[in-house]
Amino acid sequence: MRARSEQLITAIVSGARSRRSRFREERITMAHGAGGKASQSLIEGLLLPALADEQLERLADAGTIELAGRLAALTSDSFVVKPISFPGGSIGTLAVNGTVNDLAVSGARPLAMTLSLILEEGLEASVLGEEIEAVARAARHAGVRVIAGDTKVVERGQADRMYICTSGLGLVDERCRASPSALQAGDLIAVSGPVGAHGTAVMLAREQFALEGDIESDTCSLWPAVDALLESAGGELHGMRDATRGGLASVLNELARASGVGVLVRERDVPVLEPVAGACELLGIDPMYVANEGVLAAFIAPAAAERALGALRSVPGCEQAALIGEVTAAEPGMVLVETSFGGRRVMDLLAGDPLPRIC
Amino acid sequence: MRARSEQLITAIVSGARSRRSRFREERITMAHGAGGKASQSLIEGLLLPALADEQLERLADAGTIELAGRLAALTSDSFVVKPISFPGGSIGTLAVNGTVNDLAVSGARPLAMTLSLILEEGLEASVLGEEIEAVARAARHAGVRVIAGDTKVVERGQADRMYICTSGLGLVDERCRASPSALQAGDLIAVSGPVGAHGTAVMLAREQFALEGDIESDTCSLWPAVDALLESAGGELHGMRDATRGGLASVLNELARASGVGVLVRERDVPVLEPVAGACELLGIDPMYVANEGVLAAFIAPAAAERALGALRSVPGCEQAALIGEVTAAEPGMVLVETSFGGRRVMDLLAGDPLPRIC
Repeated sequence: MRARSEQLITAIVSGARSRRSRFREERITMAHGAGGKASQSLIEGLLLPALADEQLERLADAGTIELAGRLAALTSDSFVVKPISFPGGSIGTLAVNGTVNDLAVSGARPLAMTLSLILEEGLEASVLGEEIEAVARAARHAGVRVIAGDTKVVERGQADRMYICTSGLGLVDERCRASPSALQAGDLIAVSGPVGAHGTAVMLAREQFALEGDIESDTCSLWPAVDALLESAGGELHGMRDATRGGLASVLNELARASGVGVLVRERDVPVLEPVAGACELLGIDPMYVANEGVLAAFIAPAAAERALGALRSVPGCEQAALIGEVTAAEPGMVLVETSFGGRRVMDLLAGDPLPRIC
Repeated sequence: MRARSEQLITAIVSGARSRRSRFREERITMAHGAGGKASQSLIEGLLLPALADEQLERLADAGTIELAGRLAALTSDSFVVKPISFPGGSIGTLAVNGTVNDLAVSGARPLAMTLSLILEEGLEASVLGEEIEAVARAARHAGVRVIAGDTKVVERGQADRMYICTSGLGLVDERCRASPSALQAGDLIAVSGPVGAHGTAVMLAREQFALEGDIESDTCSLWPAVDALLESAGGELHGMRDATRGGLASVLNELARASGVGVLVRERDVPVLEPVAGACELLGIDPMYVANEGVLAAFIAPAAAERALGALRSVPGCEQAALIGEVTAAEPGMVLVETSFGGRRVMDLLAGDPLPRIC
């Protein structure tokens, strides 16, 4: 459901290109956790019907609920990254930043989170200690409190060292009018930094490739970036989303579908760090589909776009933010890429999973 | 941390019998997830120092945070029960009721929850479908909305079919004055129903014992029971807690320690269903230490105790609620049992884990 059920549901309801997926498979495969078409069919075809038939509300990365007269956002996430540490971060860092970012791109200032541990029997206590320290550091850095927790232990061979499940609670910022279904033709699209670093760093750490160049995960809290966007663009910020599983390509597809609009991306304007581009080429993967853990895409009305870009670039870590394309009225639900050679091609959701367990 | 870190911390702070546990082991064992002394040492000796040193707040089953002028409770839980279904319930039922109950015994009316799935590659889609239906049914029954979710898939052999992680959000009821550290000498102790059924049902389902007698899990939402207690006893309800991992014995120990009081339990007054007592005898386990998923212990000022018991018994499923003992000033932090033969013995926290993975 991290595959963005919110806009999937919106799409179902609005009927924009609404060929609702059916779940026909007998067994769960790795692809169902990857954020592409298979994930979508699991969510739309199996999870949502069961819950929705019961009059339950939409499943979303951050659901909202009115609480004491204010709109609170509640999010939930599991982290199963393999290996648990990699250049630039570890499962503990990801757990905090991933949670905080789900709230942030929902326009909610993160306030509190919980930490649920599933530990494999035999895990080294020192490793657990390091990850809890990583959680503490990341939480302090993101300004979020860890206020509750849970610990379970399962037998050897019933987990892969450790999994971390979190929830996050925030209050939706009153400046925020953004929504996955509010994109408008003409909006300009910004990304907050270079794409593809996180997934590439994890992949290289896993596979022990002997590649040159230090590639570090981009994992960080996106609240400062969101805060800058809200302050500079206010109601002209129409949509935002962090480009996690499935990468920037998936996020653009999801929001195009949710809003019933088209998206045109200029490939040459999408920032990709040189070592990341090189590694992706060697690995045979497209950085547009590689997960990020500290990059968001924002959709801004043209009048406010340059101002918002300036504000974004003033946020530490977002110096390379860029405008990469625009929202169009043509081809609703479709993402087109203008390649460096001037041609155009469709950039669809992936069917399967090029990089499993990167978060 | 489901081993009740809240009162552990209170105990550390208050110094009541405060031999603060140290974590000296090199590796995590099954006992660290069982809710007894080993869990306590993991929480106190490893998890809390890392987080507390970083100025983070206490880890508790339900943490509280002020939100828009009201006190909100946020809880977190992971479910790794084995097998995933058993007489009277399944992992989906447990996930909802366990979450709702952590809020309820914190005095918070459950409002919303999230659902995070960790699925093992190869899981039958039909099994997943059944569990999502079970979640939907239990949530509807408990009056709680499922508002966000997440799905991860891990490779075959890296999980045991499926794990469910949840969070729950509620508002603390304004009638509630109960706290783990507020027990007073003279308080009477009530349990909301017979103890030991859940853990026994899971154990029998797992081991394929050919025992007579249908033993079903007690899993249910405890909010109606808490609501009845709050309504009947108000501020005279000094403490309450659901008797999950480690059973009634562990809960009594935890609260005795947190409040710096003694507890005296009359063994003959503790309700245990006849088939549960028989199965426990055969398995060589004490029902006082067996997990429940729909039983709470409440600590009530004497003047309100009979009224509260009457109110509790009027709640469907709590007809066998009983007063089982009292809080004493003697032996702070210690739980004594008056046996059926008239003798007294200490009922301590267990060091290890008689029944792993029952929730």
